[in-house]
Amino acid sequence: MKRIMVDMDGVLADVYSRFFELFEEENGYKKPSSEIIGIKEGEAYPELYRWVKIPGFFRTMPVMSDSQRVLKLINEKYEVIVVSMATEFPLSLTDKQLWLIEHFPFLSWKQAVFCGDKSLIKADIMIDDHFKNLDHFEGETIMFTQPHNINSNGHRHRKMSSWTEIEKIFLPK
Amino acid sequence: MKRIMVDMDGVLADVYSRFFELFEEENGYKKPSSEIIGIKEGEAYPELYRWVKIPGFFRTMPVMSDSQRVLKLINEKYEVIVVSMATEFPLSLTDKQLWLIEHFPFLSWKQAVFCGDKSLIKADIMIDDHFKNLDHFEGETIMFTQPHNINSNGHRHRKMSSWTEIEKIFLPK
Repeated sequence: MKRIMVDMDGVLADVYSRFFELFEEENGYKKPSSEIIGIKEGEAYPELYRWVKIPGFFRTMPVMSDSQRVLKLINEKYEVIVVSMATEFPLSLTDKQLWLIEHFPFLSWKQAVFCGDKSLIKADIMIDDHFKNLDHFEGETIMFTQPHNINSNGHRHRKMSSWTEIEKIFLPK
Repeated sequence: MKRIMVDMDGVLADVYSRFFELFEEENGYKKPSSEIIGIKEGEAYPELYRWVKIPGFFRTMPVMSDSQRVLKLINEKYEVIVVSMATEFPLSLTDKQLWLIEHFPFLSWKQAVFCGDKSLIKADIMIDDHFKNLDHFEGETIMFTQPHNINSNGHRHRKMSSWTEIEKIFLPK
């Protein structure tokens, strides 16, 4: 059974929805797309380094559309692990695990990994939105499109922009 | 550079010191060695499942003797990662990372992994006190002795009972 390493932020957790919302709350207007698309998260939103320290920031993150339904089905045919870069922000760790338990209750605690370097983890397939993770992975890679990477050529990675697209590839009818 | 996967509870964190202390606090007497030695942690201390949920239980864990000094030296000659089984207890995650930052400040957040299955992690050498982790590891294994494993034959693993012993092996003079 092939092991799929699934990223959390920007893949299961819809972090940009939260960024849009917090920016508008603090500034009273929506940040224009031209200042977001193709720009690294921390450059588009320098506020991010402050936001991640807000208690509950990760605990209340919106869930990516269709991710719950599709990952539940994939979990029956593949060995799924959810791997999140989280140790840089200690306060995020407990919140992220509680979020995972709430929204993906079909996954066990044995399927969760919180780390600071994904190259330490063994898997066959990686679904991620960051080249820093995808580019160093030896197995099959799927780049989940997010505003920061949407204009890139995808490097060598297969691009997918939704969980329904992932469903078609992993669970063909 | 060889990668060493170092366990936290029972290797860097002196969990038994805390067990002894909490048991005596709650019962007014010391639990006799005969009810601890060679017995699984959760059987010797069924209270454990309640204790791990006490806020700060992991945050205030005593540090294993000599582990700070020796791991700092090993960290200069090996690639050290600290890998802890923690996702079963979400409240432990943030506390464990904060504990690591406090007591092992020479390690970066990129060297910490919190998971529920150590067989997902790539390394060359494992230092651990549990056979469930050691027995499935393909590289070199070092069994750190703790009351629960001290009477075992050590399976195929090299037994070491202190960080000064580990120092002699990894940092010969």
